[in-house]
Amino acid sequence: MKILMIGTTGAIGAKVRQALLEKHEVIAAGRNSGDVRVDITDEASIDQLYKTVGNIDAVVVTAGSSGMESFQRLQAADVMEAIHSKLMGQVNIVLKGQHYLNSNGSFTLTSGILADEAARDTVTGAIVSGAVNSFVMGAATELQRGIRINAVSPGLAEDSAGAIGHLFPGFNPVPMNKLVNAYLRSIEGVVTGQVFRVHE
Amino acid sequence: MKILMIGTTGAIGAKVRQALLEKHEVIAAGRNSGDVRVDITDEASIDQLYKTVGNIDAVVVTAGSSGMESFQRLQAADVMEAIHSKLMGQVNIVLKGQHYLNSNGSFTLTSGILADEAARDTVTGAIVSGAVNSFVMGAATELQRGIRINAVSPGLAEDSAGAIGHLFPGFNPVPMNKLVNAYLRSIEGVVTGQVFRVHE
Ligand SMILES: NC(=O)c1ccc[n+]([C@@H]2O[C@H](COP(=O)([O-])OP(=O)(O)OC[C@H]3O[C@@H](n4cnc5c(N)ncnc54)[C@H](OP(=O)(O)O)[C@@H]3O)[C@@H](O)[C@H]2O)c1
Ligand SMILES: NC(=O)c1ccc[n+]([C@@H]2O[C@H](COP(=O)([O-])OP(=O)(O)OC[C@H]3O[C@@H](n4cnc5c(N)ncnc54)[C@H](OP(=O)(O)O)[C@@H]3O)[C@@H](O)[C@H]2O)c1
Repeated sequence: MKILMIGTTGAIGAKVRQALLEKHEVIAAGRNSGDVRVDITDEASIDQLYKTVGNIDAVVVTAGSSGMESFQRLQAADVMEAIHSKLMGQVNIVLKGQHYLNSNGSFTLTSGILADEAARDTVTGAIVSGAVNSFVMGAATELQRGIRINAVSPGLAEDSAGAIGHLFPGFNPVPMNKLVNAYLRSIEGVVTGQVFRVHE
Repeated sequence: MKILMIGTTGAIGAKVRQALLEKHEVIAAGRNSGDVRVDITDEASIDQLYKTVGNIDAVVVTAGSSGMESFQRLQAADVMEAIHSKLMGQVNIVLKGQHYLNSNGSFTLTSGILADEAARDTVTGAIVSGAVNSFVMGAATELQRGIRINAVSPGLAEDSAGAIGHLFPGFNPVPMNKLVNAYLRSIEGVVTGQVFRVHE
């Protein structure tokens, strides 16, 4: 398959890319890295990406961020930043990409455990991940030409535990190979509209 | 209790208000109706609302909209309209209201069945309702002074079935008294972080 992957230099993306390269052609895209540049918060940049990269069988997004902030101080602008990045970035990748993807292709997005389980200062992450999960469920029924869509909902990734594990006390780090497998099931498998919760 | 209710003239809001009036003082707020005016898409308007209405024990939101659009034609702007209304409108009601509500007060928001079950042309509804559900789960752990928060997730309301039921084939209309009860459980009950799915 020819796979467009956005966010290949991230903690999760790097491991997913490595696994995909064993069997597939991977076109890497990122703001500051990759074969092609894209900023998923910018609609015109997504249009440009799809015009540049033709003939795609699968799109994988492991990009997008949601900040942490005390709930008492949280402002609408903080939430909107994550909405423009992790939520609308991924939604736009699908809305625009549906017209470019090859028949029987697939989208694999990334949500996160915060949609289902609370941690301190992470309500913004809950909002955007909950939205992505429900988006995938709905979009699966609407996509044409056999195109599938799923989300992977990572728990705390093992490779991120050193840096951010102290912010998630008691969250079991998820082995990277389990996370990678969820992406593979979505990309190479047959299901659609699923959220693969890899929460340990 | 003194209850601030936003959206009292809607299909659901009208019935909830009626029930609340039996035991409580209800201050009704809406764009074009109510004791006080508010546009929940406008942050300054929400600030003004809380400054006007003091000493509140509960806030109930039955306002907010999410349009319907073919997935093939859906644009980011359509999704953003619902995000500003039903999602960020409700989030801002909580972020700002947390500083005004009486101790041991409560917020009750409204999401919807589309977060969990797909219907044609309603991906926008899925996105915003999924986000509201996860927001409530997360925010419940962060609110201080015993303040609670829940969401009611209505299925197709019986009072709306005549107007929009044809868009939701096979969705069982939900009796209004069951919907009203979910709001009452949130407002008068003890739980927090719950999504009351009244889906029939
Ligand atoms: N790591 C975890 O434990 C964990 C747990 C749950 C959920 N998640 C979710 O998984 C996803 C990936 O997380 P991660 O920790 O691997 O992220 P990360 O290490 O911060 O990497 C993010 C990747 O996305 C790219 N990127 C960021 N913003 C972008 C934009 N606007 N446009 C295009 N590319 C962009 C970055 O590349 P450039 O810098 O070149 O743009 C980078 O390759 C996120 O949605 C995150 O919320 C992660
Ligand atoms: N009805 C259903 O079958 C159903 C099913 C699932 C979910 N829901 C959800 O339940 C909620 C209420 O639905 P509904 O059918 O009762 O709605 P509705 O009949 O359209 O009524 C909406 C109410 O909210 C107020 N409102 C709308 N936008 C507002 C704004 N920007 N600021 C302040 N007030 C605003 C309206 O009053 P003004 O015109 O005066 O502003 C009105 O009182 C919505 O979130 C809807 O998605 C409904």
